[in-house]
Amino acid sequence: MELIKNKEMPKDAPIGVFDSGVGGLTVAREIMRQIPNEKIIYFGDTARVPYGSKSKETITKYARQIVRFLQGQNVKAIVVACNTASAYALEEIEKELDIPMLGVVKPGAKVAAETTKNGNIGVIGTEGTIGSRIYSTYINKINPEIKVIGKACPLFVPLVEEGLWEDPVTDEIATRYLGSLIDSGIDTLILGCTHYPLIRSTLRKIVGEGVTLVNPAYETARELKELLEEENLLNREEQGLGTERYRFYVSDMADKFRTFANSILKYGILSAKTIHIENY
Amino acid sequence: MELIKNKEMPKDAPIGVFDSGVGGLTVAREIMRQIPNEKIIYFGDTARVPYGSKSKETITKYARQIVRFLQGQNVKAIVVACNTASAYALEEIEKELDIPMLGVVKPGAKVAAETTKNGNIGVIGTEGTIGSRIYSTYINKINPEIKVIGKACPLFVPLVEEGLWEDPVTDEIATRYLGSLIDSGIDTLILGCTHYPLIRSTLRKIVGEGVTLVNPAYETARELKELLEEENLLNREEQGLGTERYRFYVSDMADKFRTFANSILKYGILSAKTIHIENY
Repeated sequence: MELIKNKEMPKDAPIGVFDSGVGGLTVAREIMRQIPNEKIIYFGDTARVPYGSKSKETITKYARQIVRFLQGQNVKAIVVACNTASAYALEEIEKELDIPMLGVVKPGAKVAAETTKNGNIGVIGTEGTIGSRIYSTYINKINPEIKVIGKACPLFVPLVEEGLWEDPVTDEIATRYLGSLIDSGIDTLILGCTHYPLIRSTLRKIVGEGVTLVNPAYETARELKELLEEENLLNREEQGLGTERYRFYVSDMADKFRTFANSILKYGILSAKTIHIENY
Repeated sequence: MELIKNKEMPKDAPIGVFDSGVGGLTVAREIMRQIPNEKIIYFGDTARVPYGSKSKETITKYARQIVRFLQGQNVKAIVVACNTASAYALEEIEKELDIPMLGVVKPGAKVAAETTKNGNIGVIGTEGTIGSRIYSTYINKINPEIKVIGKACPLFVPLVEEGLWEDPVTDEIATRYLGSLIDSGIDTLILGCTHYPLIRSTLRKIVGEGVTLVNPAYETARELKELLEEENLLNREEQGLGTERYRFYVSDMADKFRTFANSILKYGILSAKTIHIENY
């Protein structure tokens, strides 16, 4: 596929955002808030979700297919709104593109490194994200003195998807997962999976007020805005957004996705379209 | 691909068994126990697991690819060791084959219909299996008077995979899921997902001694034996089983699969091989 050069890219081209499923909607939501003049094309890989328990090779293959699909939609930039895909696939794929590509890990790592006072940062995420040690790699590039302690929390995604956002069971599981991080004296905790902001109040209750919770989604949207400004790609006009300002694609279960999306986003999603992502 | 006729099939050809991941190993275990002279080729679709929350169309596509892979391995029969795939894909795909194909639903439905005394059967499974109403379809073909009450239990699979087989959290979740079934006065409960036998003791504790638990894996292995006898395909000789009596393939994360398999099976698995299933 021929790559489209930045200089030819119209400013009203959409931003491509993708995730393994619905979690990345928390990132899309931040982009909608912070740069409301941008069009978004969101893809959720609901036929192959979850990513967090799968290998680097498999996730890179999946991410590459999704990037090809988004390129076909003439996006001007791509946001990897999934920590596992950011950890495993971003570095390899961004070399193959000449449109800007941004993950959630680097912005999250940066703000955490700036936030910590005692130099102890905790990271929670999927097995893939934690196993990759990607957050500590980025944080230690900024400051090699900072101690980064990771903890995989595989049950959080199913608990969120089951709707147990505030529930004694989620409290109990969170207490078990976070115990060792609290004992390590962290003062900053990165929510290293896009589902986790949805159980923020539970996490806050368990870690207490003394620990700052970092949601990479917020920082990612801020960095995206800066990046688009630098590349002269930010859309400053409200005109031309059209009726299809936000478009949603999935690889399976479009109706279920729509229901979940409408519980997260202010913007009402009327439809999500199913595509065969493995053909890309 | 040309189909292989039964009459040309040697009795020492392997049986193909497949599942979305590790759950089907509980079915493979029963086959190993009940017909120990059979070779098995097991495939776990660990790159696309879970199946229970995905659509009929997607699961049928996945199952068709796996069946093509197993045919390439010259299997003499195929066991769909996954309730969701049995519910969604079996009927369509078995028409395309001329080797015997058996799912776990029909044998489970049969033994449940024979077991119930008060005519109230409960079924627990994934959203896909329960939504398909496949167990009640089969049970009501045998006896239209029986009342079948289904309950989707989406958290059981992640809890099993997290190793919380006996844990207060699993007790709590099971109490919530099973409450309505117990109130309905069921005397028989079908474990309609291959992961569930692993939390059998928790389920037993919650439903009490008055409810018979039906594990379709046992009945599936029994029906498989009958089917192979009928088709004159049962291997009665211990000779020729070779060193590779049981072979395991996955679409991702072979090492993790091997560890889990070795916690379930008596037989020690030395290796599982990764294949690109979407190429079939």
